[in-house]
Amino acid sequence: MVVAVSRWQGGSVAAIVVVRVGMGKKRLVIEAAKNLIQEAIFNKFDPKSISSSPTSPICIADLGCSTGPNTFIAIQYITEAIQIQYQSHNLPTPEFQVFFNDQISNDFNTLFQKLPPNRDYFASGVPGSFHGRLFPRQSLHLVHSSASLHWMSKLPKEITDRNCGAWNKGRIHYVCAPREVVEAYERQYRRELEGFLKARGEEIVGNGLMALQIAAAHDVIDEDEEMHPGKDIEMLGSCLIDMAKLGVVSEEKVDSFNVPMYFPKLKDVKEMLESNEDFTMEQMEALAKDDTSKSSFDLDVEMHVSHLRAAFEGLIEKHFGEAILDQLFDRYTEKVMQFPEMKNFHNRKLVGLFVLLKRK
Amino acid sequence: MVVAVSRWQGGSVAAIVVVRVGMGKKRLVIEAAKNLIQEAIFNKFDPKSISSSPTSPICIADLGCSTGPNTFIAIQYITEAIQIQYQSHNLPTPEFQVFFNDQISNDFNTLFQKLPPNRDYFASGVPGSFHGRLFPRQSLHLVHSSASLHWMSKLPKEITDRNCGAWNKGRIHYVCAPREVVEAYERQYRRELEGFLKARGEEIVGNGLMALQIAAAHDVIDEDEEMHPGKDIEMLGSCLIDMAKLGVVSEEKVDSFNVPMYFPKLKDVKEMLESNEDFTMEQMEALAKDDTSKSSFDLDVEMHVSHLRAAFEGLIEKHFGEAILDQLFDRYTEKVMQFPEMKNFHNRKLVGLFVLLKRK
Repeated sequence: MVVAVSRWQGGSVAAIVVVRVGMGKKRLVIEAAKNLIQEAIFNKFDPKSISSSPTSPICIADLGCSTGPNTFIAIQYITEAIQIQYQSHNLPTPEFQVFFNDQISNDFNTLFQKLPPNRDYFASGVPGSFHGRLFPRQSLHLVHSSASLHWMSKLPKEITDRNCGAWNKGRIHYVCAPREVVEAYERQYRRELEGFLKARGEEIVGNGLMALQIAAAHDVIDEDEEMHPGKDIEMLGSCLIDMAKLGVVSEEKVDSFNVPMYFPKLKDVKEMLESNEDFTMEQMEALAKDDTSKSSFDLDVEMHVSHLRAAFEGLIEKHFGEAILDQLFDRYTEKVMQFPEMKNFHNRKLVGLFVLLKRK
Repeated sequence: MVVAVSRWQGGSVAAIVVVRVGMGKKRLVIEAAKNLIQEAIFNKFDPKSISSSPTSPICIADLGCSTGPNTFIAIQYITEAIQIQYQSHNLPTPEFQVFFNDQISNDFNTLFQKLPPNRDYFASGVPGSFHGRLFPRQSLHLVHSSASLHWMSKLPKEITDRNCGAWNKGRIHYVCAPREVVEAYERQYRRELEGFLKARGEEIVGNGLMALQIAAAHDVIDEDEEMHPGKDIEMLGSCLIDMAKLGVVSEEKVDSFNVPMYFPKLKDVKEMLESNEDFTMEQMEALAKDDTSKSSFDLDVEMHVSHLRAAFEGLIEKHFGEAILDQLFDRYTEKVMQFPEMKNFHNRKLVGLFVLLKRK
């Protein structure tokens, strides 16, 4: 299979693999996209065309920040690069105002307590879904979002409607589901990405930048032979089905539960971003899977399950209650031990994309 | 005794009494300063001189916001008044960005969950002490702070130094303390208010407004005959001394504990605000104690103790541990029952001041 990743612009490809492992208590495993973002700033962030006055603050938003510390690392190298860019234009260093955004259920108290004490920016937290407006018109100069866009703000309605062909009975995700379910997820993702781009189009100043790290799926995946990016969710779903058969949870509860996560196909992401009228696509490239770090992505079973649990237990607990959690993840652990390929992140047909958009 | 409250400018005096009853879990009892603030906006908030462009957002900060809901009420009537002001100038309604600030220990998660769903502003939380910088230069158009400025960010060092004349042995506050202790508190308050004004002077745009509600003490208080604003803290201190005598807490622990709260004298507040070079004093007036609401400030004992406990238990627990709390507040309750005047807020020699400052 050929992975269709165009490369709009050169630049050293940093070693990066991004795993979003959590929602309420989410965590990121990042090996820096630092070089890519810093180069984007040096090449595309023009202090003179972006800011109304050299003394105005530069406003930066990190969307899907979780509770740190990865968001702080990213913001640090972004502000450093902008400072260098200002110096190279013989301009005084600007002040920075950084907005850390995540869902209202995010633990902002922890985020605030972890803020680096010697930071060179003014920090604030912004609660709410980034699929809609969060900031005033033309108030942001740079937006960063790392491995958050595969979380959807809501599920497609059709998949819980018994009278609809897209009813997702006996599954909790679109992997290995009938075409109607996959298409319902895809339509919802498309709507949400459009909402995201529309909101950012209003909020970002002319010539402002948006640096996104997007988790995408290969265009064609043979689900019998190859590992879909959402394979772990599908396997978790099969454990819930087993528990329904044993009467531990009700079948109806399982049928009405679905995970709001979608990995768009590479070609679809490319098409959606290129056709957007508010932004020009400046750069899009697959983040290299550095072989030297490969071993660190072949996690042991315990670590793999712990990451998955951190990612999904909030969601599952909300729907099924706390009581089933231990049994569910014990069952999942057993399945992973029988299917150890699951633990190696590199086996999945997933592409980490670095995308740079510029506001027209 | 004559209370020297000048009145710079007319305007209907709204019925207001402000009691700050908590720090971590603080609450406010407010009977609106709505009319005063709205009139200040109608008279002094000039859309054309305050904003670089009619489409720019108006940025508002509430300093010492706690967890709501009073901060939301204040912000609501501030944004309403600015909208009316824009309409009366035939300008399109601006977008609002509101920054809710409090100490990093504040429960921002609760604040965010309580945000009004149909608010007409973009909300964010800003953690940190308002005695220093929190925002970029010239980024705020209106600052509001209600009954927060009597909390100091730190205590004067001298009062815990055994070798210093200002050592505050056998007390937890400056009420009924030797002159050296009172002066140490006063110097610290003065430094902090200066820090507050310097930071806001940098953050607020030219012609921007600052509306403060400040709790001040009468200039002269006969502590044998009259009730100092900090009388309840002094009485709480006497309970701790009793407990030290019985060996429930150590004397040393009591000697090293002090409450970081200061009620400045009216004449001193006036002098400090008038002499500030960044702001002009536009208005300063005592908030009327509306007789009709007097009864609501003669709380029953349980309610009075509950307010006081909410205000101070976090501070006390941090120093003495949780175990002493029940006994301490039981002892305090007994003292209040012997001295019921304590419960009536109006008996205290306290003035709620409304102050309007304008950035030069």
